[in-house]
Amino acid sequence: MKNDNDNSSPTRPRVVIVGCGFGGIEAVRALSQAEVEITLVDRTNHHLFQPLLYQVATAGLSAPAIAGPIRHVLRSEMQRGKLTVLLGVVTDIDTTARAVVLDGHERIGYDHLIVAAGATHSYFGHDDWAAHAPGLKTLADAFDIRRRVLLAFERAERKSEGAQRQSCLTFAVVGAGPTGVEMAGMLAEIAQHTLHDEFRRIDSRRARVVLVEGGPQVLSAFSDKLSRKALDQLHALGVEVLTDAKVTAIDAGGLSYDSPRGPQRLDADTVVWAAGVAASPLGLALAASTGCALDRAGRVVVEPDLSLAGHPEIHVVGDLAAAMSHRKRGEPTPVPGVSPAAKQMGRLAADNLLRRLRGEPTRPFHYADYGALATIGRRAAIAMVDLPVLGRVQFSGMFAWLFWLFVHIYFLIGFRNRLVVLTDWAWAYFSFERQARIVAEPHAPRPTAPS
Amino acid sequence: MKNDNDNSSPTRPRVVIVGCGFGGIEAVRALSQAEVEITLVDRTNHHLFQPLLYQVATAGLSAPAIAGPIRHVLRSEMQRGKLTVLLGVVTDIDTTARAVVLDGHERIGYDHLIVAAGATHSYFGHDDWAAHAPGLKTLADAFDIRRRVLLAFERAERKSEGAQRQSCLTFAVVGAGPTGVEMAGMLAEIAQHTLHDEFRRIDSRRARVVLVEGGPQVLSAFSDKLSRKALDQLHALGVEVLTDAKVTAIDAGGLSYDSPRGPQRLDADTVVWAAGVAASPLGLALAASTGCALDRAGRVVVEPDLSLAGHPEIHVVGDLAAAMSHRKRGEPTPVPGVSPAAKQMGRLAADNLLRRLRGEPTRPFHYADYGALATIGRRAAIAMVDLPVLGRVQFSGMFAWLFWLFVHIYFLIGFRNRLVVLTDWAWAYFSFERQARIVAEPHAPRPTAPS
Repeated sequence: MKNDNDNSSPTRPRVVIVGCGFGGIEAVRALSQAEVEITLVDRTNHHLFQPLLYQVATAGLSAPAIAGPIRHVLRSEMQRGKLTVLLGVVTDIDTTARAVVLDGHERIGYDHLIVAAGATHSYFGHDDWAAHAPGLKTLADAFDIRRRVLLAFERAERKSEGAQRQSCLTFAVVGAGPTGVEMAGMLAEIAQHTLHDEFRRIDSRRARVVLVEGGPQVLSAFSDKLSRKALDQLHALGVEVLTDAKVTAIDAGGLSYDSPRGPQRLDADTVVWAAGVAASPLGLALAASTGCALDRAGRVVVEPDLSLAGHPEIHVVGDLAAAMSHRKRGEPTPVPGVSPAAKQMGRLAADNLLRRLRGEPTRPFHYADYGALATIGRRAAIAMVDLPVLGRVQFSGMFAWLFWLFVHIYFLIGFRNRLVVLTDWAWAYFSFERQARIVAEPHAPRPTAPS
Repeated sequence: MKNDNDNSSPTRPRVVIVGCGFGGIEAVRALSQAEVEITLVDRTNHHLFQPLLYQVATAGLSAPAIAGPIRHVLRSEMQRGKLTVLLGVVTDIDTTARAVVLDGHERIGYDHLIVAAGATHSYFGHDDWAAHAPGLKTLADAFDIRRRVLLAFERAERKSEGAQRQSCLTFAVVGAGPTGVEMAGMLAEIAQHTLHDEFRRIDSRRARVVLVEGGPQVLSAFSDKLSRKALDQLHALGVEVLTDAKVTAIDAGGLSYDSPRGPQRLDADTVVWAAGVAASPLGLALAASTGCALDRAGRVVVEPDLSLAGHPEIHVVGDLAAAMSHRKRGEPTPVPGVSPAAKQMGRLAADNLLRRLRGEPTRPFHYADYGALATIGRRAAIAMVDLPVLGRVQFSGMFAWLFWLFVHIYFLIGFRNRLVVLTDWAWAYFSFERQARIVAEPHAPRPTAPS
């Protein structure tokens, strides 16, 4: 067993932060000027700009364009000499001994802990669906989806005309939230434009992109009006949208679903899962150790100041937290699982931690909601924005798309990545080409019978 | 079983080209204006600019910067309507029935065949070394090496001071040909500059990069003078060079080698294999089927016109061919395994194929050798160039490095990639940062005892 934090000064309080997503990074930044010894732990070596992950999955961007090495992203914080970054998996949290367990054996002691471990996809108890319908949370997921999509067109080119070929050319996306809509819109653009004159035997424009949604409308977090606009834009891009379609089975050949017209079947070689999100399993570890409550999605119920009940030394932020936004007037409202909320939580948790060290009272979390945006495809997006004087403004189409572009470029971490992404997008917009259409792994013949 | 080439016109001769490296792509281009039906088969979906693959392995470039989707690279040839591109593995060649076998079951008939299947790495009969010392031929190889290198530094940060940490920080490169020298130079730059202030517990500059060469000098294809210059430049970059060091074993902990001083051991977590090259196993298939001779490296011995003895309908080009360069005067000389030679062979094979179709005599292969270049690291390279009046000119250092840069950017396929690579390099040069330091796969704890 190693010493806990071998480099730490005995005089500084030890803060451990788990996860380097939006919440974790903001917490590090907010703490880096204080007299605390910080250890940041993550299972990857990069901070991922997750809102653009679908662009990697659909071959529009390369991985380095939206992912920055943690050590590089935090290099100025690092140079202050109070931050240690460790690559490892937190397998348990011992809240009694105040230590996180790394990779099952290495213990890192803490005086204060910020857990920002995020979320993963949930198949609602059908874990066997994962093999046939990858979700989109990590770069490895994105590469998996990219490979499946590009190779499906390649397989179609080698099949004779018929049902098998059409199944290769059918892409189902389950879940019409922001990720599902983005994926469906991009897949349609790939089929309609990017690949359309690059095959000899197939016409890529005959590919079907089917968006399968269990509820009555797409992008249900938005107003009915914007949701209908989004539906119109999806149709214009060539996406088929099935609403009130509840998936009952997913296998290697496609999916089955219940619709108001009864049980249905969709043959599709490629299925992408964008339906369910569940909190990181570290929520379970915290619940077992502290008795804290979890909500239905496995998220940790936190106090107004984002700490755990009975454990003021532990804060939980981001997608792992079931947090409420507290206003001066009115009832608290639930905080959505979006990156601005995670950032704001990371900052407040750091601030409250420092307040506790100074013996000051902590502050409740208030989510400053500037609105919401969803992109659908080329020149297609919807937006609702809260403006100072005008109040809530809703708009869609080209202008919403440009606005979405601006916001996402602006928030991308690191000057260089912004430039790369902007160049790639400008190129893609005018050429219809997607620059990252690369499958790294060589093709291996499937061990199946001749077709 | 499928019909052979279902789209082919019965009147056009059917040409099958195996492999889309430099030789295969040039053959397609040279044939695309002729009245032939071309089928190009490759196991990947991209043409790879292999001379820059080490930059992907050392996190300087993203994969899409040096790889173009075949269908996009050949889109203008494709639009002439006589080219079919298929993704698949050629598992056999039936030269009697004149068909290549795809993925073990699909047969593609040909009237003429150009085999440009390239080379792979060879462990000289020690295939068990492959697991511990990846070679560098494909994008998947490059990602594997990138992951190993970056994670070795991460592991070192989690180890206590001592032999285990130093083993994490020791990088051995086996083979001091161009790839080995490039890899060693880049690894030294990463340790000395890129990472040097991004760790808390380790000093990345204490990493050792050891280049292990069995022969008496580095870059032995160059003159003694240039080889010595290269050695000086390697030393200046901080690379330790072991010559006359014959590797006898490679395992998870490092490698053993025989030196003039007797058997030695080098503990190194990361070993990169840049020593041996063997021709594609398709050479064996051709030999079994046609009785053609193979050389010691498994390359197919070809006629002066690059066809197979007794099989004028089959040409072999690129790294798979043991070809000779025929001059007007003097003895034929062996052709080196470099990309300009592969391109020239691809063009001549296509030209000779068309000559045969017209009933004209074929021409022998002459390798137009413009010289050779090897880069070593920042501002370090060696070059020998044949100039019209001056004859063979040798130079090294900054000027050779700029020349190398210019040549590689110039030959990169596709305007956009050139721009991307140039931007990335300019950024890397001034910032010392390497933009692709991303490991996609999340860390999984090793199932080993606590350390």
